[in-house]
Formats: sequence, structure tokens, C-alpha cells
Amino acid sequence: MENKKPLILISNDDGYHAKGLRSLIDMVGGFGDLLVCAPEAARSGFSCAFSATTPLRLKLRRKWEGVEVWSCNGTPVDCVKLALSELCGDRRPDLVIGGINHGDNASVNSHYSGTMGVTMEGCMKYIPSVAFSICDHSDDADFRPLEPFVKMITKKLLDEGLPKGVCLNVNFPVVERFSGVKVCRMARGTWGNEVVRCHHPRDYDYFWMVGEYTNDEPEATDTDNWALTHGYVAITPTTVDVTDYEMLRQMQSWDFE
Amino acid sequence: MENKKPLILISNDDGYHAKGLRSLIDMVGGFGDLLVCAPEAARSGFSCAFSATTPLRLKLRRKWEGVEVWSCNGTPVDCVKLALSELCGDRRPDLVIGGINHGDNASVNSHYSGTMGVTMEGCMKYIPSVAFSICDHSDDADFRPLEPFVKMITKKLLDEGLPKGVCLNVNFPVVERFSGVKVCRMARGTWGNEVVRCHHPRDYDYFWMVGEYTNDEPEATDTDNWALTHGYVAITPTTVDVTDYEMLRQMQSWDFE
Repeated sequence: MENKKPLILISNDDGYHAKGLRSLIDMVGGFGDLLVCAPEAARSGFSCAFSATTPLRLKLRRKWEGVEVWSCNGTPVDCVKLALSELCGDRRPDLVIGGINHGDNASVNSHYSGTMGVTMEGCMKYIPSVAFSICDHSDDADFRPLEPFVKMITKKLLDEGLPKGVCLNVNFPVVERFSGVKVCRMARGTWGNEVVRCHHPRDYDYFWMVGEYTNDEPEATDTDNWALTHGYVAITPTTVDVTDYEMLRQMQSWDFE
Repeated sequence: MENKKPLILISNDDGYHAKGLRSLIDMVGGFGDLLVCAPEAARSGFSCAFSATTPLRLKLRRKWEGVEVWSCNGTPVDCVKLALSELCGDRRPDLVIGGINHGDNASVNSHYSGTMGVTMEGCMKYIPSVAFSICDHSDDADFRPLEPFVKMITKKLLDEGLPKGVCLNVNFPVVERFSGVKVCRMARGTWGNEVVRCHHPRDYDYFWMVGEYTNDEPEATDTDNWALTHGYVAITPTTVDVTDYEMLRQMQSWDFE
């Protein structure tokens, strides 16, 4: 007999043990069958990277309330590709969810984020996909206030899907009470002071990547950064097609002789 | 006395020893001062990943015709960030070039590509940035036919720059004679059969990521895939702002209560 329940594939970039992942499982378990395949350790900043040259392994780590939690030694994108190929059997997920990420993925963080890697990979496979992230990097971030929004968006995506090539990047501020929900664009922002030089006891320099983010359009009220700093849940519809169509039009007049 | 020559920062994802990188240095050396910082080994498929938790090192590997070639143990994006912070002194590059990549970065490959990681990182720092790639994975690919186009585009970008937040993804077919240049959008395409399961002598399964690409809109004549299969140099203007504005408009009517 065919299983009519939706299948939800979950991954993240903080690793299979992360509280954000466990919280997500608790929140969306009622919507269908869950399958979890997440990195064996933290893979923050892994973007859409996949492992072109590393042999990958899958390990069934545990069952949380009947949900299989697999780990993989690769990237967040590897987790999605492997789950689709090796763990879903003849089923295909109805929804891919990345998160809940410890730390925001607004503005250009969207490009670096492994959580968005999960979501983009689902989207590139034409599966409705969403990333959830909270503006709190701590291991024990409180995810409970997010639950009604995570459930609402999950239900909506299972009911209505998304157009091909579009996924959602959802970021939550840390506030007493959310101001509401804003559908918004990605802010233009930059990371600076990204490198700290250190000196090794064996007498060579090495470097840590860190950095400080600046919102380069602080006046704009239609961005994810604005929404988050004003207490709103920020939802940014995100496209796989990164063609700049305005520039494409301008370039028609370029002379390539 | 101030140095008035342009500074061109070069990186790639095939590693500092790659023929494509050496060829690029030869082609654009006449346009200004070059600085090369590239991964110490191949980093294909590294996307916009950066190293959030790994200590990074820089090594001056050699000088090719006066050009310093540095290697880094991190990702292509790390190379750009470290070069900007540690190797440029008080100068700022006038142009960032990724490549020349051994293998094409058209369609969704743009998201996985470390070469495009270099270019996106330059673009996110508001520096005019371009990626060059050839549809040939072999170590000894013949880059000479690309030279007039690489020079033309480099000169144009040094003379005129690019709007903030837009970079160029340039792909070259392997043909006797190029049909011309097409400014085109990213094709919608998918990777399938991406996982090969193998069995280890110690009795466990492991997996290699491979795959076959399919152009999902083979009839469309305005895509990078079409241009490449018809012998054209394909130039796709690529945006950092991945907001889907059409979806954003549609979502204004969503009910989030």
C-alpha cells in the first residue's frame, strides 16, 4: 500500500547533534514522515560545496521518536544528494528543510551558508525547499518561539509547493515578541576585518577567518537586515537562476569584436 | 610615488599549479601588476565555502615572470579574503579573475563552482570580477584559443568596471573556431545519477559523488548551454542579490496569521 504521508528531508550545517536540528524535528514531526541526514560535525560556511574527491560515508546515528537520523562525513549538499540517492528508497521528498541554523543567514550570508546549501540543493532538484535560521549562535539558543512560524510555513509549502527554482530563506530575530512577518529582499552588505593573523610556536604565521558584517544600505526598509533589526521574521524568496537580467540587457550593446 | 598600474588578483579552484592559472597569468600580465593566491591543491566544487574553523596558511610558492604566486590551504574564497587582507598591502585590486577553470561552470554549476566562488567573493567586495572556464577537464587543456577573448574582456573590465553586485561568468566551448560571443542567461539544468556506491575491503559502503548533467530546457536559444553547444563563448552576468523579485511580489498576498 502506498504511503500517502508527505516525506520531509531535513539537514543542516551545524551537525546532526545540533539543538536546532532536534528542535526542528520536534516541530514538524506531525506533518509527515521525516528523514534526517546531516553532517557528522559542524560545517558552517560550506555554501553549496560538495565533495568531488572525498569518499563519503553514511551512519545511522539514532532514532528520535521514530525518525532516522543519519550522519555523513561530507558537506550539507552531500547530505542532500546522498539522502535522495541512498536513503529515500523509491520515495521523493515533498519538502527539504535546512536548519534550524544557529546564526542568521540574511544578506550575503546566504551565499556562504551551508544551511542555504541544503535548501538550494533541494531547490535545484525541483523540490520545495526552505531554510530556517535564528540570529543566535549559541549552542543552547531558544527555538521555542519559532515553532508557530516554522509550522505555518511548513504546512503552506506542503500544501502549495513553490515555483521551480525558488526556495525560501527564513531568518528569525531574537526578541521578546515578534513584530510580525516581512517578505523582503536580501540587503546589500559586506564582511570586513575578516582575517586575524596569529603566530605559531614553531615560528610561522597562520590565520583565522572571522569578520564583522556591515549593512551597506541601512536606510532601506525592504531588506532582511531591516526586518530582523526591527523584530520581524524575515522571509526572502531566493532564486537558483543568478542571471542578472538588467545587466544582460545592457550587455547586448557591448562590442565583442 | 603611487603605483598607477592596475592590480589584478587571480585565484582558481584547480590549485596554484594548474595550467589554466599559468595560462591566465601569461594572457593578462601585460595589463598591470598581478597577484596570485590559489589553493595548494584542487578545490573543485567548493562553491563560496570559507574556512570557519581551520587555521589557514599562506606560502609564497614561486615567481612566474615577476608575479608572486601564493598558495593557501583553504578554499578559493579563503584565497581571495586572505589576499585582500594580507597580500595587497595598501593597494586594492582593480579586478579579480577566477580561472581559467578546467571544466565548464555554466548553468547550475555556477553554484557549485569554486572558480565562481572566487568571482562572487570579489564581487561581494565590490571589485569588478570575472570567471573564465573552458569545457575541458583535462590537465593539459589547450587555452591558447581563448587568449583574444580573455584579453578583450579583461581590458573592458579594467576600463569600464562593472555595476556593484554583478560579476561575469565566462565559459568557452572546445571548437575549431568560435562562432562568436553570446551574452546569455543561465540554463535550467539538473545533475542526476550523482552517487556511486562502493564497498570497502573492511566491509562497509562508501560513496563517490559524480553525476550526469541534463539541460532541462534544450529548446531555449538564449541560455549558456545553448551558446556552448553551438560554439559560442558564453558570458552570463551573474548577480549577488539572489532575491526572487517576482516571487517576492506574489508573496505580498500570503497570509501569515
